[in-house]
Amino acid sequence: MDRRISGSTQLLGLIGDPVAHSLSPAMHNAALAAMGEDYCYVPFPVAAERLAVAVAGLAAIGVRGFNVTIPHKQAILPLLSQVEARAAAVGAVNTVYALPEGGWGGTNTDIDGFVQPLLGLEKGIPTLILGSGGAARAAIQGCLELGLGPVRVAGRSPEKLRALQQTWPQVETLSWAELDRHLAETRLLVNTTPVGMHKPGSLAELSPLSWEQLRLLPAGATVYDLVYVPDPTPLLRMAAELGHTPIGGLEMLIHQGAKALSLWLGGKLVPVEVMRQAARQQLAQIGDPNS
Amino acid sequence: MDRRISGSTQLLGLIGDPVAHSLSPAMHNAALAAMGEDYCYVPFPVAAERLAVAVAGLAAIGVRGFNVTIPHKQAILPLLSQVEARAAAVGAVNTVYALPEGGWGGTNTDIDGFVQPLLGLEKGIPTLILGSGGAARAAIQGCLELGLGPVRVAGRSPEKLRALQQTWPQVETLSWAELDRHLAETRLLVNTTPVGMHKPGSLAELSPLSWEQLRLLPAGATVYDLVYVPDPTPLLRMAAELGHTPIGGLEMLIHQGAKALSLWLGGKLVPVEVMRQAARQQLAQIGDPNS
Repeated sequence: MDRRISGSTQLLGLIGDPVAHSLSPAMHNAALAAMGEDYCYVPFPVAAERLAVAVAGLAAIGVRGFNVTIPHKQAILPLLSQVEARAAAVGAVNTVYALPEGGWGGTNTDIDGFVQPLLGLEKGIPTLILGSGGAARAAIQGCLELGLGPVRVAGRSPEKLRALQQTWPQVETLSWAELDRHLAETRLLVNTTPVGMHKPGSLAELSPLSWEQLRLLPAGATVYDLVYVPDPTPLLRMAAELGHTPIGGLEMLIHQGAKALSLWLGGKLVPVEVMRQAARQQLAQIGDPNS
Repeated sequence: MDRRISGSTQLLGLIGDPVAHSLSPAMHNAALAAMGEDYCYVPFPVAAERLAVAVAGLAAIGVRGFNVTIPHKQAILPLLSQVEARAAAVGAVNTVYALPEGGWGGTNTDIDGFVQPLLGLEKGIPTLILGSGGAARAAIQGCLELGLGPVRVAGRSPEKLRALQQTWPQVETLSWAELDRHLAETRLLVNTTPVGMHKPGSLAELSPLSWEQLRLLPAGATVYDLVYVPDPTPLLRMAAELGHTPIGGLEMLIHQGAKALSLWLGGKLVPVEVMRQAARQQLAQIGDPNS
């Protein structure tokens, strides 16, 4: 159960379309209750064409900060007063906070969420990222901040790959056909494509890489799938069976939330395990957040 | 404790400045939890100069309805698509709901809240209202809807009294000095002035009428004080001591909330006793909502 809401309760929330199946309200409210903070985190369903009016309104109704999800992560940029450089590099903001002088500041805690489960890895290990969309951009920034490398990105869209290289010239981009010959050297494999994500009504179990491809990875590789439904994904089940170390996308989700909450609360430590349990519980209740 | 908030939870709330000591979040969330409705009622602190941006924003973030308190009850009128006639007569809106076709509709459930504790009174009894501000206007509309009369209003502002008569020509307006000679006939006395309201740091116990004035009321009169802190007010303690029937302002607050909630939920019956208990409990916790 959430904290009791009174007239002095301050608001946090999530803008997106849809937001109905988000795990964030459950996760944040559980942490806020455990911390005894007089805040409440609520969903704000906002259609793409109403973003500017919504963002101005959120300031006018005293909201302290909010998360941003699809389809607003890029479109929010011109509506902010300040954007952290790493969020600007990624080209997306997922966390917005009220600035003391008025207006909004934006950052991208997806990067922090991505990095957190990888903090134990050696620096300088060859990394291969599958996909070239928004999640890939956060993953690249995270890998570079961790000092991993070389960082390679395999994607199917030549335009998106070119855009990645314009932002990060040190990243090596590969067509999908080229990725096989780098697998033997890859110590960290990251899937940022939606392949493997559960689709309502479909029993298909898809993996972005085949058994043959996964067998090319060296012993002791780490396989990180940003997809978190089903848990584990087909990719992670296959990776585990081959003796690799699997990391599920729920950890990224939990840690991006923890970082955002800490930021809104002025840098306080937040109870990550409480957030993890709340996210898992909510996921079990709603079944499939992508449906 | 409030309902668990998820991504599908719909929002209701309160705009005003200040809202920190409002009893409404506690009252509405208690009722929503008891009803099992997936709604959450939250405070939206909105400064006067940001009202238009806030109201547009509330639509853009999917809020289903909201209450309006000081200083916005009049200023909200031009921002609405529809205003119920009785709210327009009072000149103030306290409850706003999303219209199916977009835009906002407004009504004034302060009238309903005022009327509710008086439903057992005989029609056609002489009524005297003290004060000529916004609360007096809701009280006049309520008295006329109840068929009470003659309705007299005693106030200190000739301009406000003239404005009342322009809206309701059947109302008799009195200067404060004139009220004494109508007390012997008054079967319902309503205080809409703030006199008697607890002021932080002050021990003064004030009543809008003196013992001498109250003794002029006929036996069995009803005395209704819209002030609800302290509970009972000095006026109501004096009235009770003289054998009159006291009614406290908390009932009006509870019933305006119940009517608003029922309206937002498509006419459902709402648990008034749950709201009453939550309001009393919150009042006891926060001490003084006017501080």
